[in-house]
Amino acid sequence: MSHAEPDEPVIGPADAAGAPARPVTISYIAETAGVSIPTVSKVINGRTGVASDTRARVEALINRYGYRRPPSSTRSNLVELVFDQLEHMWGVEVIRGVEQVAREHRVGVVLTEFGPERGGVRYWIDDTLARRPDCVVSVAQLSGEQRGQLRARGIPFVVFDPTGELPDGVPFVGSTNWAGGRSATGHLVRLGHRRIAMIGGRDRILCCRARFDGYRSTMEAAHLPVDADLVARADLTAEGGRAAALRLLDRPQRPTAVFAGNDLQAVGVYRAARELGLRIPADLSVVGFDDLPIAALLDPPLTTVRQPLAEMAVAATELALALGRGERTPRTGLELATSLTLRNSTAAPPR
Amino acid sequence: MSHAEPDEPVIGPADAAGAPARPVTISYIAETAGVSIPTVSKVINGRTGVASDTRARVEALINRYGYRRPPSSTRSNLVELVFDQLEHMWGVEVIRGVEQVAREHRVGVVLTEFGPERGGVRYWIDDTLARRPDCVVSVAQLSGEQRGQLRARGIPFVVFDPTGELPDGVPFVGSTNWAGGRSATGHLVRLGHRRIAMIGGRDRILCCRARFDGYRSTMEAAHLPVDADLVARADLTAEGGRAAALRLLDRPQRPTAVFAGNDLQAVGVYRAARELGLRIPADLSVVGFDDLPIAALLDPPLTTVRQPLAEMAVAATELALALGRGERTPRTGLELATSLTLRNSTAAPPR
Repeated sequence: MSHAEPDEPVIGPADAAGAPARPVTISYIAETAGVSIPTVSKVINGRTGVASDTRARVEALINRYGYRRPPSSTRSNLVELVFDQLEHMWGVEVIRGVEQVAREHRVGVVLTEFGPERGGVRYWIDDTLARRPDCVVSVAQLSGEQRGQLRARGIPFVVFDPTGELPDGVPFVGSTNWAGGRSATGHLVRLGHRRIAMIGGRDRILCCRARFDGYRSTMEAAHLPVDADLVARADLTAEGGRAAALRLLDRPQRPTAVFAGNDLQAVGVYRAARELGLRIPADLSVVGFDDLPIAALLDPPLTTVRQPLAEMAVAATELALALGRGERTPRTGLELATSLTLRNSTAAPPR
Repeated sequence: MSHAEPDEPVIGPADAAGAPARPVTISYIAETAGVSIPTVSKVINGRTGVASDTRARVEALINRYGYRRPPSSTRSNLVELVFDQLEHMWGVEVIRGVEQVAREHRVGVVLTEFGPERGGVRYWIDDTLARRPDCVVSVAQLSGEQRGQLRARGIPFVVFDPTGELPDGVPFVGSTNWAGGRSATGHLVRLGHRRIAMIGGRDRILCCRARFDGYRSTMEAAHLPVDADLVARADLTAEGGRAAALRLLDRPQRPTAVFAGNDLQAVGVYRAARELGLRIPADLSVVGFDDLPIAALLDPPLTTVRQPLAEMAVAATELALALGRGERTPRTGLELATSLTLRNSTAAPPR
């Protein structure tokens, strides 16, 4: 069954960005691309039997003029949820939020993990186009080409917690990483700490940069130093955190507090502190980021910035479903607020 | 489109259990049930418009005579994966195994979490029947009725790590919990421990009983006591483990080793030990069960029985897909071997 008949006006643009909003028909696209109407229909409906360069040309035209699947056309009642790699203690929070919305709206969730070396990417876009989901929630990094292919089939998508820059108009849901960095640092400043170190993640990950900038802006506002002795970069793992903490702490004039880039790094800071004979929080205060289930299980339980992962997933899925119903929503990009969860890993600095 | 034509022989039984293997047609079922052929077809294909008592009668007949969807009929290329509640640090391992097989076979995974109070159960069976997946992998407890409904539509299912007794012939994949209990206890015995305590989970959970029986049989074989002072029952949580450990350890003649029912309980044993001023492993050895990602992050890293969750999920999905292709596999129930992961929470008992 074709979801877009040849003489049905294809109303654009699907994106908030740029292109003029004029109705375009499939025959117009076919004529402009120099292909037959059934070929355009095949591309739109994700069927095989179209040469890849023809497919690309048709997709480009569809995207130039914009295409939106008519809102009342056949719904599959499926949401596609896609991950690069499922992370322990992180993936479940996200999936739970998506499942909660799926239960409320009675839609099925098709879950894809691209897996090691993104092996699943190869087929995913074809299989997704063939399943014709109502929408996509992507925790994975979709390439510009993949975004274009989804757009050309009128399948809306929302990017969950984008790790890189996105073009304007691409719907996303993230969290207030910069404000979270400020809140963690502010807490330590108010406890009386002056030498506060930060272990940042890698700069190419956008949220890591935001957390670091939040730290720095709070330190500067409090007229506290942000010198090379106080700053490290490491992978967002326990081992990364341990190595960085050993570097920061194994010296006479050491910091009295460490703000770790995430909870796993904080686990590494705990280890380094034990190796150096430093007690938490008497000798060293530690703050993490994420508030994963392990944070409460650590000894002492970790003070950390809570990222509302499940709520973010709820918001992303609600947004994707609304776009799938053809609703125009005023906000297609949003960051949900982080909050500081106070536990027992922070205290006033030693005298 | 009907997946089972009226005059197509319906070969049974789908189950290994009981019923004679004779071909039965849809018209025979319709006649016996006193309904029309289209009604039987509707039931088989999960469509609406059949009164619930009629539906139940037809299902019962189909199950009595057995029904298997012809192997080459239309495949949806979907696997249904269903959880009661997604557990942190546990769910991801399982999902990863399923996703790995899904990538290899290029099938989509529809993930359902029944959620709090199993709210999602209400629609799940209807929605699943309508999606007509190739097979179901169930981490959730399916009722006998739900199993009957799936069977009546020729949708094969595999139960993942069953927590309760299953009728013979129901395909499942679990792990060798009894042997795991023996291996944990044997390790402590070989280190020289004599007073070895076990914190078991609740008896209604089958795997907890198996782990406890493994502990007891090893203790008995080594002529060691299993008295009331050495045995506790608790929920499989950190708080459950802590409370039980305080009870077991806060006395003069205390055990020198504790085998916890799972890793979360072991976290609680660590806490109790710190509260009582006992050092791990110098004063107290601790063994867990599961080998979740937290086990390696604990201080000291936890010696624990590894349950191969991802491999179990791979096996369950492979089995379900094979059944979905109509293959007769010799083994439809299996337990994968556990193994002991040695870390730093166990040592010889204090002298």
